[in-house]
Amino acid sequence: MEHSSASVPAALPYYVAFSQLLGLTVVAVTGAWLGLYRGGIAWESSLQFNVHPLCMVIGMIFLQGDALLVYRVFRREAKRTTKILHGLLHVFAFIIALVGLVAVFDYHKKKGYADLYSLHSWCGILVFVLYFVQWLVGFSFFLFPGASFSLRSRYRPQHIFFGATIFLFSVGTALLGLKEALLFKLGSKYSTFEPEGVLANVLGLLLVCFGVVVLYILAQADWKRPSQAEEQALSMDFKTLTEGDSPSPQ
Amino acid sequence: MEHSSASVPAALPYYVAFSQLLGLTVVAVTGAWLGLYRGGIAWESSLQFNVHPLCMVIGMIFLQGDALLVYRVFRREAKRTTKILHGLLHVFAFIIALVGLVAVFDYHKKKGYADLYSLHSWCGILVFVLYFVQWLVGFSFFLFPGASFSLRSRYRPQHIFFGATIFLFSVGTALLGLKEALLFKLGSKYSTFEPEGVLANVLGLLLVCFGVVVLYILAQADWKRPSQAEEQALSMDFKTLTEGDSPSPQ
Repeated sequence: MEHSSASVPAALPYYVAFSQLLGLTVVAVTGAWLGLYRGGIAWESSLQFNVHPLCMVIGMIFLQGDALLVYRVFRREAKRTTKILHGLLHVFAFIIALVGLVAVFDYHKKKGYADLYSLHSWCGILVFVLYFVQWLVGFSFFLFPGASFSLRSRYRPQHIFFGATIFLFSVGTALLGLKEALLFKLGSKYSTFEPEGVLANVLGLLLVCFGVVVLYILAQADWKRPSQAEEQALSMDFKTLTEGDSPSPQ
Repeated sequence: MEHSSASVPAALPYYVAFSQLLGLTVVAVTGAWLGLYRGGIAWESSLQFNVHPLCMVIGMIFLQGDALLVYRVFRREAKRTTKILHGLLHVFAFIIALVGLVAVFDYHKKKGYADLYSLHSWCGILVFVLYFVQWLVGFSFFLFPGASFSLRSRYRPQHIFFGATIFLFSVGTALLGLKEALLFKLGSKYSTFEPEGVLANVLGLLLVCFGVVVLYILAQADWKRPSQAEEQALSMDFKTLTEGDSPSPQ
């Protein structure tokens, strides 16, 4: 029973591998776009702006997406280990995104540009704050020893829904930022199928594909970590955390 | 049993009412934006462009979203009636969106502008084609009498996943279009918090909220049409359609 409940669905590894291929391609194409058409990346000079898209794509898209997949990928590990990995990946994503945010605000300040006027920036600040709040609430409920088992069970579906929503909203915000960067620089040249415009459009579609594949993996009911084992591990976790002991992996 | 399975969850009507309030507000704000800042709507002259955002928002956002909610709202009606309403709402959405597409291609042609160069247009064409394919496949499986009950059961989760994904992709594409329209017209004035820019940003956030609320209603497992009644009605439907008879509503 324990063995069969921890078995991996046949198609899952292929979808996970495809998601990672897409995610890494998204990061690579973002780097290529910034390197080929925007002069590369540096903290000083006007290249500081370029830190923003790269950090946001690595943090808010790739790492955030991977953090959501942790429970589908690590099925045999103790629930607590998986939880900590999920929380840590989100911390890395948050820190990298924070560097990206500091970069753009600092760049705007140095150049004397206005902040927070565009739809991209409104969506961006909103999604970043929601991401932080979701992490704090998730930590309080699932890693901090205070919340009861029934409270966790009631909150879990909300955490999953808003986690997926914040991820998809991040993808949408990235598309808006990409579009903004293209229109500011290319202007009417965008309509002449400039190589930069075509590459950035391809990057936009890759971002959408990564979002869809991650969502697809999350949405498959059969691919979820088996709930019996999950509940058992959760109650064990709770007991362990309150008693200050560590759980046995099996 | 029949009565309890058809009972409405307490919170559902409030969420549906909120979604409709948001959806109608999105349509109204789109109209207000086009009326106040873009000279209104007409098929001739440069106002023809404005037919595009209004039709796409009514068809691909509001009506498409409402079509997805049909199974949550009409819980007591015969499954077949609900199915036909779901299919018909998508047909209306498709026709209105088609008018919006014709408007922008015709406008581009008259003005001598290039077509399909932007990320918005790539996403738009892709999502429109996917929407059409999803409708055709959905019709073949669920309304046409050919598909077996087991085939329908296997396809249903895919249909639901891709339906929600296409809807969210439509919302993302609308945001890209809104951003494009703002940057083309306002340019650097966008950063001075022009009233049009602020109104359009608010419209963008309202679009996101409508998408999230529709997705939230769809994602609540307890709010789904009870599966026992569903399966019963489905097999009845299949029998009825192949025998050319109409089902009794209860």
